[in-house]
Amino acid sequence: MIKLYNYELSGNCYKLRLFMNIIGLQYETVAVDFYPGREHKSAAFLAINPWGQLPVLEDGQCRLRDAQAILVYLASAYDPQSNWFPADPQTRAQVCAWLAVADDITRTASAARLHDALGYELDVESARRDARVIFRLIDDHLAETEMEGGLWLAAEWPTIADIACFPYIALSQEGGISRDDFPAIRRWIDRVRHLNGFIGMPGIFAPHV
Amino acid sequence: MIKLYNYELSGNCYKLRLFMNIIGLQYETVAVDFYPGREHKSAAFLAINPWGQLPVLEDGQCRLRDAQAILVYLASAYDPQSNWFPADPQTRAQVCAWLAVADDITRTASAARLHDALGYELDVESARRDARVIFRLIDDHLAETEMEGGLWLAAEWPTIADIACFPYIALSQEGGISRDDFPAIRRWIDRVRHLNGFIGMPGIFAPHV
Repeated sequence: MIKLYNYELSGNCYKLRLFMNIIGLQYETVAVDFYPGREHKSAAFLAINPWGQLPVLEDGQCRLRDAQAILVYLASAYDPQSNWFPADPQTRAQVCAWLAVADDITRTASAARLHDALGYELDVESARRDARVIFRLIDDHLAETEMEGGLWLAAEWPTIADIACFPYIALSQEGGISRDDFPAIRRWIDRVRHLNGFIGMPGIFAPHV
Repeated sequence: MIKLYNYELSGNCYKLRLFMNIIGLQYETVAVDFYPGREHKSAAFLAINPWGQLPVLEDGQCRLRDAQAILVYLASAYDPQSNWFPADPQTRAQVCAWLAVADDITRTASAARLHDALGYELDVESARRDARVIFRLIDDHLAETEMEGGLWLAAEWPTIADIACFPYIALSQEGGISRDDFPAIRRWIDRVRHLNGFIGMPGIFAPHV
């Protein structure tokens, strides 16, 4: 069975739990004590992932790191017909550009949350400011997309771009980043929450359907 | 014809010129005065890419941003049979994990180069230190790969992972980052330089074959 090295409060682990639930994939988790244990920096975990980062996914003999790369794997291996990772080169590249944005969101909005929630020492004002710049670009993009009848970040249907960008945007208030100025983001969050198979995590509620 | 919004000294633009030359794709360039003109932050360019970043590639009605995403596009659209972006889900995901590393290299080694070469104000010692941590992980990975008979970052053959990570590693000395401690990286750089169709840029010489 697929094995996910997991920390419940990590948005990057959550996006894999979320996606596997949406596509109906069974998996088991191995708990890694990110906080306070810093187990992701232990010798035992570095033997699994030298980069010292969660999540890691194992599927048989295959071991993968990087949340976005794992989304590409799961979509390509287990649900190619739904085009979560599109076959068309242009749409595929648009998705990939948004996967890079997901990393930018992690470095900013997630960093601010690590500061506020777990006491990480970092320049939280800078992290919040950079996150707001990214949120502004995303909100403008989504507003423009809605004007053209679209609902999702990268295609006319939900893709792993939406899954990848969702968690740390939806958790932004835990890092002191309000979404009051980003109405198109708020509407998009609600659309993601109503995807079939959606599950929440601490800080992100599943909707009362 | 394919149009590349281009700055000659950008490693992220160079990786697209390099890849298009390797796969034999014709293109034209539109010069964007990144320095000193900051033309990538002009209203005219922000209308093309709201993120204010180079490169951008246009192919007919398709406009794409993000160097790694554009590599995925070019490989998928113009040379799928060579598996520069692999069809196999596991290998594809390994490539995607390295595309994320390419962004980490940009944020560290390229930032140090922007400081040294163009006078950008940033914490260059921190950028160099973070770059060396990444280079250590890459060198260890390549050394282990060589022990198993492998030559490339993500597969048994060269992929866009190698193309994406190459430029700012090969330009690292322009940011004050020596590669003396990274012998496996030096051997890999030489292998990339001997790919058919390789071209250099200022700071990266094509080999005397």
